[in-house]
Amino acid sequence: MGILIQRMLRDKVFGLKSRGRLSGVFRAIASTLASLCVLMASTIMPVAASSANSYNVAPANTGSEGEPLLPDGLRLLPYKMQGGYKVFHLTARPVWWNNGRGLVVEAWAYNGTAPGPEIQVDVGDKVKVVVQNDLPEGTTVHWMGLDVPFQQTGIGGISQPDIAPGKSWTYTFTVDANPGAYIYRAEPSVHMADQNEMGLWGPVIVEPKGTPWHHVRPGYNEEYTLVIDDSGQLGFNLNGKSFPATRTLETTIGDNVLIHLLNVGTMEHPMHLHGMHFQEIAQDGDPLSQPVTMDTLSTAPGTTYDIRLHPDNLGKWLFHCHIVDHVVDSAGHMVGLVTFIDVKKPSK
Amino acid sequence: MGILIQRMLRDKVFGLKSRGRLSGVFRAIASTLASLCVLMASTIMPVAASSANSYNVAPANTGSEGEPLLPDGLRLLPYKMQGGYKVFHLTARPVWWNNGRGLVVEAWAYNGTAPGPEIQVDVGDKVKVVVQNDLPEGTTVHWMGLDVPFQQTGIGGISQPDIAPGKSWTYTFTVDANPGAYIYRAEPSVHMADQNEMGLWGPVIVEPKGTPWHHVRPGYNEEYTLVIDDSGQLGFNLNGKSFPATRTLETTIGDNVLIHLLNVGTMEHPMHLHGMHFQEIAQDGDPLSQPVTMDTLSTAPGTTYDIRLHPDNLGKWLFHCHIVDHVVDSAGHMVGLVTFIDVKKPSK
Amino acid sequence: MGILIQRMLRDKVFGLKSRGRLSGVFRAIASTLASLCVLMASTIMPVAASSANSYNVAPANTGSEGEPLLPDGLRLLPYKMQGGYKVFHLTARPVWWNNGRGLVVEAWAYNGTAPGPEIQVDVGDKVKVVVQNDLPEGTTVHWMGLDVPFQQTGIGGISQPDIAPGKSWTYTFTVDANPGAYIYRAEPSVHMADQNEMGLWGPVIVEPKGTPWHHVRPGYNEEYTLVIDDSGQLGFNLNGKSFPATRTLETTIGDNVLIHLLNVGTMEHPMHLHGMHFQEIAQDGDPLSQPVTMDTLSTAPGTTYDIRLHPDNLGKWLFHCHIVDHVVDSAGHMVGLVTFIDVKKPSK
Repeated sequence: MGILIQRMLRDKVFGLKSRGRLSGVFRAIASTLASLCVLMASTIMPVAASSANSYNVAPANTGSEGEPLLPDGLRLLPYKMQGGYKVFHLTARPVWWNNGRGLVVEAWAYNGTAPGPEIQVDVGDKVKVVVQNDLPEGTTVHWMGLDVPFQQTGIGGISQPDIAPGKSWTYTFTVDANPGAYIYRAEPSVHMADQNEMGLWGPVIVEPKGTPWHHVRPGYNEEYTLVIDDSGQLGFNLNGKSFPATRTLETTIGDNVLIHLLNVGTMEHPMHLHGMHFQEIAQDGDPLSQPVTMDTLSTAPGTTYDIRLHPDNLGKWLFHCHIVDHVVDSAGHMVGLVTFIDVKKPSK
Repeated sequence: MGILIQRMLRDKVFGLKSRGRLSGVFRAIASTLASLCVLMASTIMPVAASSANSYNVAPANTGSEGEPLLPDGLRLLPYKMQGGYKVFHLTARPVWWNNGRGLVVEAWAYNGTAPGPEIQVDVGDKVKVVVQNDLPEGTTVHWMGLDVPFQQTGIGGISQPDIAPGKSWTYTFTVDANPGAYIYRAEPSVHMADQNEMGLWGPVIVEPKGTPWHHVRPGYNEEYTLVIDDSGQLGFNLNGKSFPATRTLETTIGDNVLIHLLNVGTMEHPMHLHGMHFQEIAQDGDPLSQPVTMDTLSTAPGTTYDIRLHPDNLGKWLFHCHIVDHVVDSAGHMVGLVTFIDVKKPSK
Repeated sequence: MGILIQRMLRDKVFGLKSRGRLSGVFRAIASTLASLCVLMASTIMPVAASSANSYNVAPANTGSEGEPLLPDGLRLLPYKMQGGYKVFHLTARPVWWNNGRGLVVEAWAYNGTAPGPEIQVDVGDKVKVVVQNDLPEGTTVHWMGLDVPFQQTGIGGISQPDIAPGKSWTYTFTVDANPGAYIYRAEPSVHMADQNEMGLWGPVIVEPKGTPWHHVRPGYNEEYTLVIDDSGQLGFNLNGKSFPATRTLETTIGDNVLIHLLNVGTMEHPMHLHGMHFQEIAQDGDPLSQPVTMDTLSTAPGTTYDIRLHPDNLGKWLFHCHIVDHVVDSAGHMVGLVTFIDVKKPSK
């Protein structure tokens, strides 16, 4: 209930699209009497304050591991080699999240950051991911598209019990997937929707065998990941931030640029690039037999896309969702699912 | 009006997404005064009771013809050969429909079942479909994608008059279409939206010439049809049922599985499979020149897809819409557009 | 605020889908007291009257230049050759717009028509477009997909200042794009969403080098453009009109027909053709390496598609969005995103 009220406050104050999780009955009864009070109150206190008493919430935007910051604004999850496995650690816990546009809310995040840190692995890697649950309820981690064995797939109540609060669980698998973009996210036996809306998702990027960790894929000059989200809780955001707090993707004329797009939201988002066309080269990690050239790629919930760009037009180009309600706030300013791709001249 | 009130009750009680067919004015006026009464009343009586006085409604889930039950939960419509034609009979009439998840509503259905029974024909078949209208208003049947002659296309007020209540109409055509999935549904001159939301749609599966009726397509081990619906009246459902009442699709390691996906709803539904990737091989009955491999297929309203699966990962895998609001109820439990694809070891 | 009230009136009176730009708070407070008055008042006066005092509004449906009317209902923008450039003139200004279905609203339109007139150019053309701003606020024109130089791209506050009311701005570029369909639309620094919802968009059709102006593309018998829109202000419309005021696309058995589809709205619209399948041959102006055959094409916001049709089935076939709410009004009649493709016998 705390979450529901918090969401209602957010919706009313920031004017972002609600997806109707509060029924008409509740809205009509509650808001006719209480709307003005709510409106006034919520503008002078942090919107999540009402639900903060029951457990501790970490400070805003703090990666608990101090993971390296990537140029696209994501954190990169380090690992340790143990017995032939790359061992990663994720902790799910509440955090204050600042989307960079005046919205500070309680999020549920992996290692204090939404999206969770990027997990970068190579084809053929043997992987363990130790998940610690510091949430007030059970959770799991599902590995979308990696096609791991059933016991490792992380579906609460189906392939495993939920990980209880305070407990941990280790997922073990071999990366038997194409180079490309995949998603990890919570799929507990109850409250899957709520946990996803609170921020429990992140990217897995699979690289060709032998690619060193924290390196751009061989053959490319830049490699970026954009996690596209429309959750009720965090608002429309790219890598957790709302424009203009989103990171500009830096490129140079003549470069070969690889961008992973991951739609972790609940809506279709047609992502449109100004000034240049790009090529869709893979979906869900599978290469297309024929790349398709376009300037707008309609991304669907739960789907990932790899696009390739050869920058050939100087400028600081907008790259944005083409649904105007997802990129303009109620005052008419550009926010949400927007970033820049900056194309510079090569230096001598 | 009875239908509208019924829908409102359903929306409020079951918390499923309403698509806004009641205007803001109506909601505000009606619900401010009456909401609590409505809420209380609707929880203690069948939700459709208010509109049941005007005509008789058949018992729940009764196929009037006793059609064979398919493993995917659909009914298969029998035919008789008459003068070189396969002659099928459909009767459109009201029925109580139980979506298996506590929702019992009045549906308008073909032969007492929603979706209507599967019509299985072969390429080149000469077909007659006799449609009896036992609804309280005019209706027609439109044959989506079969590209029948204009006089047989079933558009009320355009290619034919509506079939009046108590009357019948015979559609005659030759199956001049690729093997694949097609849709039949009501397209009367008025209330097309309402009739579709009440359940008046079903699958036509075209098989290669010579495929015996009630047989899997040659070259495949299993063949399943999933009709995806989000109608206001029946809620989010696969083949008329809401998870976990949906049927599990049974497969075996090494099989060649053909699944027809038909989106008869009004929303995009990205269908995501756990544990395995599959290949989209056709859209709207037309084979793709290059199959596309993926684990999430974004299905659009009015569109059909054929996908091919080679099960290679043991487990009982979820296959579900990736929009969380379509698969989680307000209490956080998994419902709606979800089923299992169970992959078993081959028996010795 | 005038626009917001006007929209609210339109939504309430015509029952078309609102996309929630009015917050729940505002709706609840305003509508509980005022709904009945608003409802009564708005049915007896033009809905846009409240905002008409601040500036002059042109008469309904008047192209200020008297541009030629195309068979699809669009206007074709003439040009003059000056110094090797094709010079076009667009004036953005308020107009009363009649969508042909009883809805007369204030629109903001280019040259008095929504969509703006079609700009037809050839590959390699040198082009100037002089934009006069007769709106009450700043605006720009963005050239989607044409990949013009950054200074000519028309993004207010980023690539140029907004064009102030009463001022003009000239865009200069060479058409370095494939033959196909592109979009021009307002992208000012503020109110981009509002200006797009008011009607500030139009088609750019690029033809192969040497195609004479106002001619069908070589190799085709007919060439049509359909601009698909769902703006809050104009309602669901094709080329500015709601069915049955939309233009029928005339074809003949055996013809080769090219249709450009441009989704300028904010929703996915799966466009379904009765009686025949068609081929998608290009997206965003880029030819597909393999055309895809289908009878329903899911069009995404901000995206253009070229489809090719070989009419082979006599009849007056519906071509419509398959989301029933976009094609049926609250009384159950067919409206909105619907038109006919009429296939006639060849004359002797």
